[in-house]
Amino acid sequence: MIRTDLAMEAAQAAGNIPGVEVLNDEVMPGVNRSRVTILNQEGEKAIGKKKGIYVTIEAQQLARGDAELDEHCSIALANEIRNMAGDALSGVVLVVGLGNRMVTPDALGPAVCDAVFVTRHVHEYAPEGIDERLGNVSAIAPGVLGITGIETGEVVEGVVERMKPSLVIAVDSLASRSLERVRTTIQIANTGIAPGAGIGNKRKALDQETLGVPVLALGVPLVVYAATVAQDLMENAMNKTPTDVNIRPGVQNILDAMMDAEGADMIVTPKEIDKVVDDVARIIADALNISLHKNMTIEEARRYMH
Amino acid sequence: MIRTDLAMEAAQAAGNIPGVEVLNDEVMPGVNRSRVTILNQEGEKAIGKKKGIYVTIEAQQLARGDAELDEHCSIALANEIRNMAGDALSGVVLVVGLGNRMVTPDALGPAVCDAVFVTRHVHEYAPEGIDERLGNVSAIAPGVLGITGIETGEVVEGVVERMKPSLVIAVDSLASRSLERVRTTIQIANTGIAPGAGIGNKRKALDQETLGVPVLALGVPLVVYAATVAQDLMENAMNKTPTDVNIRPGVQNILDAMMDAEGADMIVTPKEIDKVVDDVARIIADALNISLHKNMTIEEARRYMH
Amino acid sequence: MIRTDLAMEAAQAAGNIPGVEVLNDEVMPGVNRSRVTILNQEGEKAIGKKKGIYVTIEAQQLARGDAELDEHCSIALANEIRNMAGDALSGVVLVVGLGNRMVTPDALGPAVCDAVFVTRHVHEYAPEGIDERLGNVSAIAPGVLGITGIETGEVVEGVVERMKPSLVIAVDSLASRSLERVRTTIQIANTGIAPGAGIGNKRKALDQETLGVPVLALGVPLVVYAATVAQDLMENAMNKTPTDVNIRPGVQNILDAMMDAEGADMIVTPKEIDKVVDDVARIIADALNISLHKNMTIEEARRYMH
Amino acid sequence: MIRTDLAMEAAQAAGNIPGVEVLNDEVMPGVNRSRVTILNQEGEKAIGKKKGIYVTIEAQQLARGDAELDEHCSIALANEIRNMAGDALSGVVLVVGLGNRMVTPDALGPAVCDAVFVTRHVHEYAPEGIDERLGNVSAIAPGVLGITGIETGEVVEGVVERMKPSLVIAVDSLASRSLERVRTTIQIANTGIAPGAGIGNKRKALDQETLGVPVLALGVPLVVYAATVAQDLMENAMNKTPTDVNIRPGVQNILDAMMDAEGADMIVTPKEIDKVVDDVARIIADALNISLHKNMTIEEARRYMH
Repeated sequence: MIRTDLAMEAAQAAGNIPGVEVLNDEVMPGVNRSRVTILNQEGEKAIGKKKGIYVTIEAQQLARGDAELDEHCSIALANEIRNMAGDALSGVVLVVGLGNRMVTPDALGPAVCDAVFVTRHVHEYAPEGIDERLGNVSAIAPGVLGITGIETGEVVEGVVERMKPSLVIAVDSLASRSLERVRTTIQIANTGIAPGAGIGNKRKALDQETLGVPVLALGVPLVVYAATVAQDLMENAMNKTPTDVNIRPGVQNILDAMMDAEGADMIVTPKEIDKVVDDVARIIADALNISLHKNMTIEEARRYMH
Repeated sequence: MIRTDLAMEAAQAAGNIPGVEVLNDEVMPGVNRSRVTILNQEGEKAIGKKKGIYVTIEAQQLARGDAELDEHCSIALANEIRNMAGDALSGVVLVVGLGNRMVTPDALGPAVCDAVFVTRHVHEYAPEGIDERLGNVSAIAPGVLGITGIETGEVVEGVVERMKPSLVIAVDSLASRSLERVRTTIQIANTGIAPGAGIGNKRKALDQETLGVPVLALGVPLVVYAATVAQDLMENAMNKTPTDVNIRPGVQNILDAMMDAEGADMIVTPKEIDKVVDDVARIIADALNISLHKNMTIEEARRYMH
Repeated sequence: MIRTDLAMEAAQAAGNIPGVEVLNDEVMPGVNRSRVTILNQEGEKAIGKKKGIYVTIEAQQLARGDAELDEHCSIALANEIRNMAGDALSGVVLVVGLGNRMVTPDALGPAVCDAVFVTRHVHEYAPEGIDERLGNVSAIAPGVLGITGIETGEVVEGVVERMKPSLVIAVDSLASRSLERVRTTIQIANTGIAPGAGIGNKRKALDQETLGVPVLALGVPLVVYAATVAQDLMENAMNKTPTDVNIRPGVQNILDAMMDAEGADMIVTPKEIDKVVDDVARIIADALNISLHKNMTIEEARRYMH
Repeated sequence: MIRTDLAMEAAQAAGNIPGVEVLNDEVMPGVNRSRVTILNQEGEKAIGKKKGIYVTIEAQQLARGDAELDEHCSIALANEIRNMAGDALSGVVLVVGLGNRMVTPDALGPAVCDAVFVTRHVHEYAPEGIDERLGNVSAIAPGVLGITGIETGEVVEGVVERMKPSLVIAVDSLASRSLERVRTTIQIANTGIAPGAGIGNKRKALDQETLGVPVLALGVPLVVYAATVAQDLMENAMNKTPTDVNIRPGVQNILDAMMDAEGADMIVTPKEIDKVVDDVARIIADALNISLHKNMTIEEARRYMH
């Protein structure tokens, strides 16, 4: 099974299998949606992900300076958040920014927290005259185990127990199989975060079972294993080169050996990662701000944030 | 009563009063210690601080590039931490970095967390062969209410309940009466943090009562009210100028009116605040690293941190 | 003569004097303009500033989250830039961001450089099909003497000699007499920057004489001397308190002594300085982007910058 | 010819050729030195680099927390700087930090500038009583074309003309062929910087010819092309797998096609790049501080910098 945090990549690699439904459509110009539903244990086993719905929003030119396209992605993502969250949006929502703010490709979660329009304290301490459209939103970036000595799950469980939110939305950086997917794809799932997923090694799940409330997981592929970069380029190259059928098994041997070659387990990220994280954090924060608050445009939400 | 987070300033302003003991000594060359003990309710009322021990470590040239003096301050501070903590150091210690990392004069707590040598996860997940001198240390910077929508106290209570540390050490930026005290003084108290103290407006206490474990409060004056800057300079000037006794009452009237003048409630910080916070965070982290771990020099602790 | 970089404060302190013209008007709702013209040597001596035009744009609620007001200030400032620059805008414009990006209140210049829409390299290397509205803009933040060992003037002279711009716009943090002016005022002058002005101690002027091209100086008060804070509060207080006329001379003695009191030469800045610098840098960059490029709205310029 | 900024990689790829001398030795425990001398045009053509001496200092565990090894690398590098610079060290030395401080893998040069102990202004303005061991050092980070609109070369030429240094040391991030070389290798050459080398696309050389003074180039591989990552892993895998000789030509075809496959020109960097840049900048700054000043230990130099 390939190393990826994206259900869509795992489904593509697995091919057509029972227990897994895949639907693709274009939800806005230039913005594609892929919905992978894992229906049962058979699907779980084939894909290596928990039962549930995984949606990816994709745009080839995401986070590359096309402000309109980026806003379309925010809107598409906000729609998925609303669909998956349903009534849970009417209570307190806790956004959890996973990752390490000192490690650029792992800093997406904390960066989103910094840009989310937080209102729980206003509802609590100054409710009179509050704009009716404002949801009840809070956000925490609990840090990573290596820096705090504390499991992310320990912090989040403690806060959830006290705050009793109706919904948790966890934001995280993901690993992908393909360099091209970095900066084009945002995944949202209704399954929470599994242990060991994402860039940092979480040891505890953050999901309905551990937290007692629904948990949406919002993730963006920002790193790739060196070995899968190589595999992907090899496959791209083979598809474009007339290759003697007889050498295919030999090449496959080499590809397999590559997984264990020196350097194969290095994790890489695009050179422009600082800007990617900035842009993607803004896209996600915009999506959160227009879905967690009511009847609000991206522009209004940004003005509120200044 | 004057606006200050320093017990020592409050004691100086109050003068000689029952219920309050003050001791001053030089603990190292260039490093003075002042110990204010508030013994009872009478003392509490006079000083406006809770019953307990408040020690300030002072050095005129603190955080000004004299590496040896800075290390002396770390050592003096480490001694106070050991004295106040006693046996509690043998269990898990949780360092809590209060404040907002985006607001420079309020970023001391998070900066200390980044530089503390954290080991709880090593004890938990890889205890075999761990250096015996290593204490069991964890650290969290919970953010501020305006950014997270969550009370600092809610986060810390949740984490303490799960981790069950034997000691909490809270680090915070303080307000002082005097500009000169910014960058010369570190306060440590065995009373925890009171609501409303520090730069941010905390609404909940962090103390033995709320957390169920002893709480040391480590604070450094990094901001001053504009009005007290003015009062201090006026008083310095009056002490140096032959002033007609008859005008004193008139001047006092002006001084009093100044507290309500426009701009009086502005809070200021020295221009060099970025460097002050960097340097003081290092001094405090050094003190924590040599007191929370055993038989460790500042140099060794720094090597561990790289 | 008082310590201030603002001609307007110096003129207020000097009172009505020959050789100096002062005009005040409201240029937009909530935005006031004050124009001080120093006509001759007599004026220069009275004010302590070079002959020339000094305009301040003032808004009480500047950089406090009122997006519309901030944009009005950008537009008012852009008008002054266009008026002072005249035909020089048709050539290459060099924006010089003075100050130290590591010292928050001194980081305004570099922050503006980061947000200015720079186009000179596009004109030079890819002129075909360039948007006709784009001016020819470049920007440099040369650092400060203590960090580089090189005078700012040495760097700027070298670059100007090679690039031959038609206009230099230098952006700098200033010292003011009054805390209230920090975050309310932007000054623009057609005189360039004098040695010793601004927060850092420049030793060389940046002006038409040294650079051979017109130099506009854009400055924002971000720091205040502690002594002048005290003086201002005292004066505010005296104006509000019925004060016996007989004590005025005595008080004046104290005020004078205060200039030499310990701590009087400390330089302070508001606690919120990080946000002030961010916001003011954006306001100035917006003003530059709509005045150095043609027929461009603030919104369009911001989209170009992403 | 392969895409690499390292003469050593180019020499390895070219094999044994006339006009190029390669020497390898271990200069300290764990620290290897490789010296590539390009003697003539024939060598230049084979390697694709200018005539001159290229030394790489290599350590497998560089910048991974072994403080002693990192210091050995600094010492080894300092020796090469002294050898290449010779008498030029007695005059003013200008350190030029190339690259963009906003793009982490391109921020090495500016980060080194921030940590170099600069003294030219002390020699100039306060020469009395200066520590005799102090060299005459200055440092500038001129920014990148896309941000400033100004060629790096234009800024450096202007400054050099004014300051007349006896030596320029340019520090830059490099591209390498191999992911494993990122974080193990530092290159120093006496040839200056060629146009188009490094991460940013410089259009002008910085060398003796353009600047009129000797130029040392100090570079560290921090990025890799995706295609060369794949090639390297493939070759590692093939060396470890018994491969049928008959399929080699077919595989070579695929490898060649890979250079043009989609995604092949992406540039990647390790996930830990923030820490790598921090650590390597410190190693290089230490090397500069002990070679540009006399009889100074790394520890003394670091104390001077605080």
